[in-house]
Amino acid sequence: MYYPQPIADLIEGFMLLPGIGPKTAQRLAFHVLNMKEEDVMGFAKALVNAKRHLHYCSICCNITDVDPCRICSDPARNREMLCVVQDAKDVVAMEKTKEFNGRYHVLQGAISPMEGIGPDQIRIPELLRRLQDTDVNVNEVILATNPNVEGEATAMYISRLLKPAGIKITRIAHGLPVGGDLEYADEVTLSKALEGRREI
Amino acid sequence: MYYPQPIADLIEGFMLLPGIGPKTAQRLAFHVLNMKEEDVMGFAKALVNAKRHLHYCSICCNITDVDPCRICSDPARNREMLCVVQDAKDVVAMEKTKEFNGRYHVLQGAISPMEGIGPDQIRIPELLRRLQDTDVNVNEVILATNPNVEGEATAMYISRLLKPAGIKITRIAHGLPVGGDLEYADEVTLSKALEGRREI
Repeated sequence: MYYPQPIADLIEGFMLLPGIGPKTAQRLAFHVLNMKEEDVMGFAKALVNAKRHLHYCSICCNITDVDPCRICSDPARNREMLCVVQDAKDVVAMEKTKEFNGRYHVLQGAISPMEGIGPDQIRIPELLRRLQDTDVNVNEVILATNPNVEGEATAMYISRLLKPAGIKITRIAHGLPVGGDLEYADEVTLSKALEGRREI
Repeated sequence: MYYPQPIADLIEGFMLLPGIGPKTAQRLAFHVLNMKEEDVMGFAKALVNAKRHLHYCSICCNITDVDPCRICSDPARNREMLCVVQDAKDVVAMEKTKEFNGRYHVLQGAISPMEGIGPDQIRIPELLRRLQDTDVNVNEVILATNPNVEGEATAMYISRLLKPAGIKITRIAHGLPVGGDLEYADEVTLSKALEGRREI
């Protein structure tokens, strides 16, 4: 044992985090020793609070400290539109656009047969139950899962499931990212952009 | 505000650490939510303990939870050899070699006129006091500061300071790293390796 116990414990703590190996953990631990005491205490408290006070919203399955979450319980939100995303982080990304005023459903993942994740391992049953029971006035479901294989498969699965109920299902557009360069776009993105062209 | 307060606090906490920007902080914070409760509590406790119970050894200026540190108070250590390093992490690196059985002095930095760090901003006065008062039986000081400009300058400064006292001063060898490739060695390293050649 080369380190005093308190620092060995801290290094071990940092190594529990993703993408942090022994060297980075050591660097971070030594940085903590030089941080202001109140900052370290605040950080430790934030860790405990985040773990203790956060849970999933019983309606939209987003991460929240109140139930239902602030978006679900906001009366100013359009109850006719529902945006389906994979992740709590995606809700934040959507909110930042300030373009969407409906509500969300967080799947907490995507269908991935390779990893053994089927429709029932993510929050698809909760989505169906919600549309049948509480949110019967939804008339458009926007599928905003990621534009990769798993996200597309999930979007396809949900659209087939909901179509018979007569709800309008839309998928966010694929195309060239703003600020991107045509030259560097991959073929699939470019062909999707061409396919989705609109009259101006 | 897009995030519930507890998670916003946690993201802010992670952003206090070096090399962690908003995106990584967000990723780490969400990872914490999926960690086992006992792991998170242990990590938070480790942060608090590391900050509260660690300080510098009054003899060697290394980081420790007891004073004097375990190395300084170990009677099995050779009291005639003193290895001067820049950093607490360097002590660990030296200990891992299991080749050195003397004691250490941690400078907590290197002389760097560019950053306004002079000899008195690092633990050189403590080193002198130590050699004059408590560790009078030291007969070899090994300078193991980093092999870069600041480290060399620091080593040079200390050697000039201690030479008049008649103590033997040595510097760790420069040369090719083991497992390295001659072809990829830079000229300075290669010329140092040539200069330091030994008969076999």
